[in-house]
Amino acid sequence: MRVVCLAGGVGGAKLADGLQRVVAPGELTVIVNTGDDLNLHGLTICPDFDTVLYTLAGIADPVQGWGIAGETFEVAAQLARLGEETWFRLGDRDIATHLFRAERLRVGGRPTEAALELATRFNVPSRILPMSDTSVRTRVRTDSGWLDFQDYFVRRHQEPEVIEVKFDGVETASATREVKEAIRSADAIIVAPSNPIVSIGPILAVPGLLDAITAARRRGVPSVGVSGIVGGKALRGPADRMLASLGDDPSALGVARRYATAGLIDTFVIDVQDESLAPEIEDLELQVIVADTVMTNSQSRADLARTMLDAAAAARQ
Amino acid sequence: MRVVCLAGGVGGAKLADGLQRVVAPGELTVIVNTGDDLNLHGLTICPDFDTVLYTLAGIADPVQGWGIAGETFEVAAQLARLGEETWFRLGDRDIATHLFRAERLRVGGRPTEAALELATRFNVPSRILPMSDTSVRTRVRTDSGWLDFQDYFVRRHQEPEVIEVKFDGVETASATREVKEAIRSADAIIVAPSNPIVSIGPILAVPGLLDAITAARRRGVPSVGVSGIVGGKALRGPADRMLASLGDDPSALGVARRYATAGLIDTFVIDVQDESLAPEIEDLELQVIVADTVMTNSQSRADLARTMLDAAAAARQ
Repeated sequence: MRVVCLAGGVGGAKLADGLQRVVAPGELTVIVNTGDDLNLHGLTICPDFDTVLYTLAGIADPVQGWGIAGETFEVAAQLARLGEETWFRLGDRDIATHLFRAERLRVGGRPTEAALELATRFNVPSRILPMSDTSVRTRVRTDSGWLDFQDYFVRRHQEPEVIEVKFDGVETASATREVKEAIRSADAIIVAPSNPIVSIGPILAVPGLLDAITAARRRGVPSVGVSGIVGGKALRGPADRMLASLGDDPSALGVARRYATAGLIDTFVIDVQDESLAPEIEDLELQVIVADTVMTNSQSRADLARTMLDAAAAARQ
Repeated sequence: MRVVCLAGGVGGAKLADGLQRVVAPGELTVIVNTGDDLNLHGLTICPDFDTVLYTLAGIADPVQGWGIAGETFEVAAQLARLGEETWFRLGDRDIATHLFRAERLRVGGRPTEAALELATRFNVPSRILPMSDTSVRTRVRTDSGWLDFQDYFVRRHQEPEVIEVKFDGVETASATREVKEAIRSADAIIVAPSNPIVSIGPILAVPGLLDAITAARRRGVPSVGVSGIVGGKALRGPADRMLASLGDDPSALGVARRYATAGLIDTFVIDVQDESLAPEIEDLELQVIVADTVMTNSQSRADLARTMLDAAAAARQ
């Protein structure tokens, strides 16, 4: 069963890890958001890609969910001594990833090629594809004006209220042939419990990408999403507050409504805590599955993955 | 007394350190070779500049003469795990320098601007200027064909015989306004005991640079060189073998002849071991000073600097 998973950062990485544990090796392709990418110290940093990479390589820091376990910070300490800003704290091993990528890009490689080579070097059996090879930069409007995403997310700890979101450069971006081919040959599409606005949102905004998913769904390929908001609270990050400040329900219902409106999914998994929302979500013409969705360890990651793949298999019949 | 010093790597850095110890703060400008620069892991590395920078900042590794004392190698270890070539072994703190530079270049800064800012951040009281803002790459022809300089120098341990040398890109390079201004306002020009072919050679090959020195000399500004070859042996590196394989005397006389032919200097300092070469060097119409030239500690660096500045002062009178 060839599976395509749309993912952002930590939540997406966890579900991708669960999927990698239950599908045959090589059958999983993760399409990751690149709207969070940033330029730092002359390097292109891809936080969502790297989080998925390290998680699928089995080396992610188990406490914070991103970065590499046992990381050191010698370079960052020296950059601080030189008076450089280090609010986006880069670990030494993580910097090796960025240097690996930088060299591939310098000699004319596409970001997708660098990504595929990185996954190989990290012995990851799955494919992790940037949503696009073109630079897309998520920006959020707040009381302090338009902010780069990581300025909002890391530097300001997601504290400012988000009034508006845009994806700079997305109109001239395009889905890569690798992304289109993965969707074309997929048996199931899985949407991870990532932020629907700033993680899944940029992926869907890449011209041609949602079209490819729509075409697959017309051919009967099931598309199953899951809410990253449980009991009205985002499991991680600011998705609940963002939905509210943008005028949506800060709940699984709000997430479902976004995906239904986009035509992204046919089945939606909600947590047992949110069972009461099922009727309203079914009114959006979505099949609803109620399950334990909170991933606290490898087992629960695999369980949620299996739940979603079972729902996909059921939808195919 | 405003002093301009032409320098390559370790030998140049040692004399620059001596000069910085004996001139008033801010009176020293070091013009460094950039022909040894290389692109590695997506970064521009400037080995000669960095060696001078770390030495003048007082943080150079005292044993090897380049790199930073107490350096760690976490990034390099991870790059090796990823299968990357690490023959040019970058330390973590050193990488911070390269990232600092990379960010300045990324946003459109000139290499000279990045260099001046780095010296400020490292609290260096002198100015260290790249010989040019344009990329120049020294290449050497050997039995294995044309090699990039660091491939020859670091990776192959200077073992192949050098048959020919070229400075790729130098014809379209130019002396920066900072370099020209430093030479224009200099009271003395000092040529460090660096490799005359691949350290001083590229500096002299930058269009406009030797012209500026010639103009200064015509105004009576003294120019004093010193031999990096003592007793027929290079104090460090392959200068002796290179001079021989290129058909020159592998001695202080060979170095003197190169500088005299270029019209670079009027006074040449040779070691007491080479006193017997003085008559032949004087035949090149150079004033000869015999002194202890081997720099083994801070005191001998300062002593050689003072010897050269005294020679310059005497030549002015």
